[in-house]
Amino acid sequence: MQWVEDQCKAVDEQIIAKASAHQNSLTKPPGSLGMLEESAIRLAGMQGMLKPQLDKIAIAIFAADHGVAAEGVSAFPQAVTVEMVKNFARGGAAISVLANLHGAALHIINAGTANSVKDIHDVVDFSVAKGTQNFSKQPAMTQDQCLEALAVGQRVINEVISDDTQLFVGGEMGIANTSSATAICCALLNYKVGELVGAGTGLDNASIEHKAQVIESALNLHNVESTKSIDVLCAVGGFEIAALAGAYIAAAQRGIPSLVDGFITTAAALVACRLRPELKSWLLFSHQSAEKGHRLVLEHLGVRPLLSLDMRLGEASGAAVCLPIIDSALALHANMATFEEAQVQDGT
Amino acid sequence: MQWVEDQCKAVDEQIIAKASAHQNSLTKPPGSLGMLEESAIRLAGMQGMLKPQLDKIAIAIFAADHGVAAEGVSAFPQAVTVEMVKNFARGGAAISVLANLHGAALHIINAGTANSVKDIHDVVDFSVAKGTQNFSKQPAMTQDQCLEALAVGQRVINEVISDDTQLFVGGEMGIANTSSATAICCALLNYKVGELVGAGTGLDNASIEHKAQVIESALNLHNVESTKSIDVLCAVGGFEIAALAGAYIAAAQRGIPSLVDGFITTAAALVACRLRPELKSWLLFSHQSAEKGHRLVLEHLGVRPLLSLDMRLGEASGAAVCLPIIDSALALHANMATFEEAQVQDGT
Repeated sequence: MQWVEDQCKAVDEQIIAKASAHQNSLTKPPGSLGMLEESAIRLAGMQGMLKPQLDKIAIAIFAADHGVAAEGVSAFPQAVTVEMVKNFARGGAAISVLANLHGAALHIINAGTANSVKDIHDVVDFSVAKGTQNFSKQPAMTQDQCLEALAVGQRVINEVISDDTQLFVGGEMGIANTSSATAICCALLNYKVGELVGAGTGLDNASIEHKAQVIESALNLHNVESTKSIDVLCAVGGFEIAALAGAYIAAAQRGIPSLVDGFITTAAALVACRLRPELKSWLLFSHQSAEKGHRLVLEHLGVRPLLSLDMRLGEASGAAVCLPIIDSALALHANMATFEEAQVQDGT
Repeated sequence: MQWVEDQCKAVDEQIIAKASAHQNSLTKPPGSLGMLEESAIRLAGMQGMLKPQLDKIAIAIFAADHGVAAEGVSAFPQAVTVEMVKNFARGGAAISVLANLHGAALHIINAGTANSVKDIHDVVDFSVAKGTQNFSKQPAMTQDQCLEALAVGQRVINEVISDDTQLFVGGEMGIANTSSATAICCALLNYKVGELVGAGTGLDNASIEHKAQVIESALNLHNVESTKSIDVLCAVGGFEIAALAGAYIAAAQRGIPSLVDGFITTAAALVACRLRPELKSWLLFSHQSAEKGHRLVLEHLGVRPLLSLDMRLGEASGAAVCLPIIDSALALHANMATFEEAQVQDGT
């Protein structure tokens, strides 16, 4: 656990000031590129370069299973977690298509699936256990397992992704993991379950009500203090969520920015920011998902994601769709003419 | 004017039904790709292909000047219109960078600038006149000029862009054209000027108030019926706005979908839809601009654009940033595995 105590790298404030001045010299009304300007300026500060780059992107999808799936909280059976891992590896899943389209490296990590991934090529097997325990009956994981799962994220940053990675994108696959994410966010932020619980992969209203009751009674059972992130993870977390939290922290410690995907990854980012508050300046938020709780958790974090396309698929798909938006932001920042170069009057 | 009476090509409803069924067979919870699914399905119907393509994109920027600029309604002087045309041609403007990044053909059209574009390479000179008249004193254009400006758009579709264009993107450059767009939308939709008027390129509050008064008195002066789009264009329109309206109509008549940019182009799309109501099914809306009136006009049209990034630059920049979103939508639609192919349980 020692590594989590290490500070994230400092963002370069001088470069941020320079990048901001550069934006105002470009041939456009100041501020008229909106959120694209902010994205370019922030990435300049993170990469420590006036003109940041986005040629080396690493996507890692963390797969794990959840004991609470036994309570019927998902529209899909647990076997689908590993079936989808196979689909990622074979190139048929949304994230496979998007990673290929946008030239990002795709890594598939087993953080703890119930079924074996042995016969699937190209899966990095860092499994903590064959799924968490059913958190409606007992803690999802032991503290040792939780620390191991956090370290899975660190290992992915330090051992799996390329050393010259300029942006890290985390994703997840795990049947029932919106239940875990909802429970985590309710516990950490003191929301009522009804405020955050949503349809996940597509539950009807009666099933959402059942899912809410399962989460509600689990939170009562464990009754964890909202200040104790690790305890919350142990009680109602998931291996992939803990691994994502560890990955975000390890990336920021190495000076690699992360692009956060949807609801589950935002829950992981929330945990990670509780453990290392300075992490927040290393996170970009890609999209607001259709999952009901996501908006409130983003609001709590005080962030506005770039996209809002009613996506709710997970597996880093929203972040992957967002990559070319950041690409556009950086190309504009790097390649537009200044008022002086183009001999355009700047309106002042 | 005869050509405007011709119906737009019919969208292929059978292909839409097939594309919709195909989306539901892909390895994801149904609907979980949100607005990306709808974009792919609609483009399938427009292109008449189960798997639509986005390899040939034509962007045309229509530049023109506005007599009302003399009233001090813009933060930039009128000379900037042609200075920016030069910047487009030389590759330094936002749209130059984005067209290059996303592999789109960029055409620059002079629809009627006050200053000459003769010494600028690569500008198609279809100028109607050296800017409109000052609409706070007299009609912006004669009816003949208005019809000529509409036909400029048609000529661009029929003579300038490539025959195999799969998506048309219109953009504009014209100092003071948010005043014209605001006046058009107020006249056609019976909004009060205060509801729609905004900062344009960056006016302060006192200047916005002045701009509102100029538009208000112009609307009182001309007092055009909201049902007469051509009369509204003549009274308070702009050559580039009329040309864009003509281009959207001509594109849809030829079966080419259009991606609408920000506030000015949406005003043009509104006029075009009044002239040819069936046009609407050929329009995709790319982004909601930071310009105050845009949201209300989009709501009136009943459309939700893909992006909302607080951009307010015009010159098709928002649409260009949106192109890779549509690209992602089409790649997912074309290349994801089905549940059957991937042997993933579909949760039913």
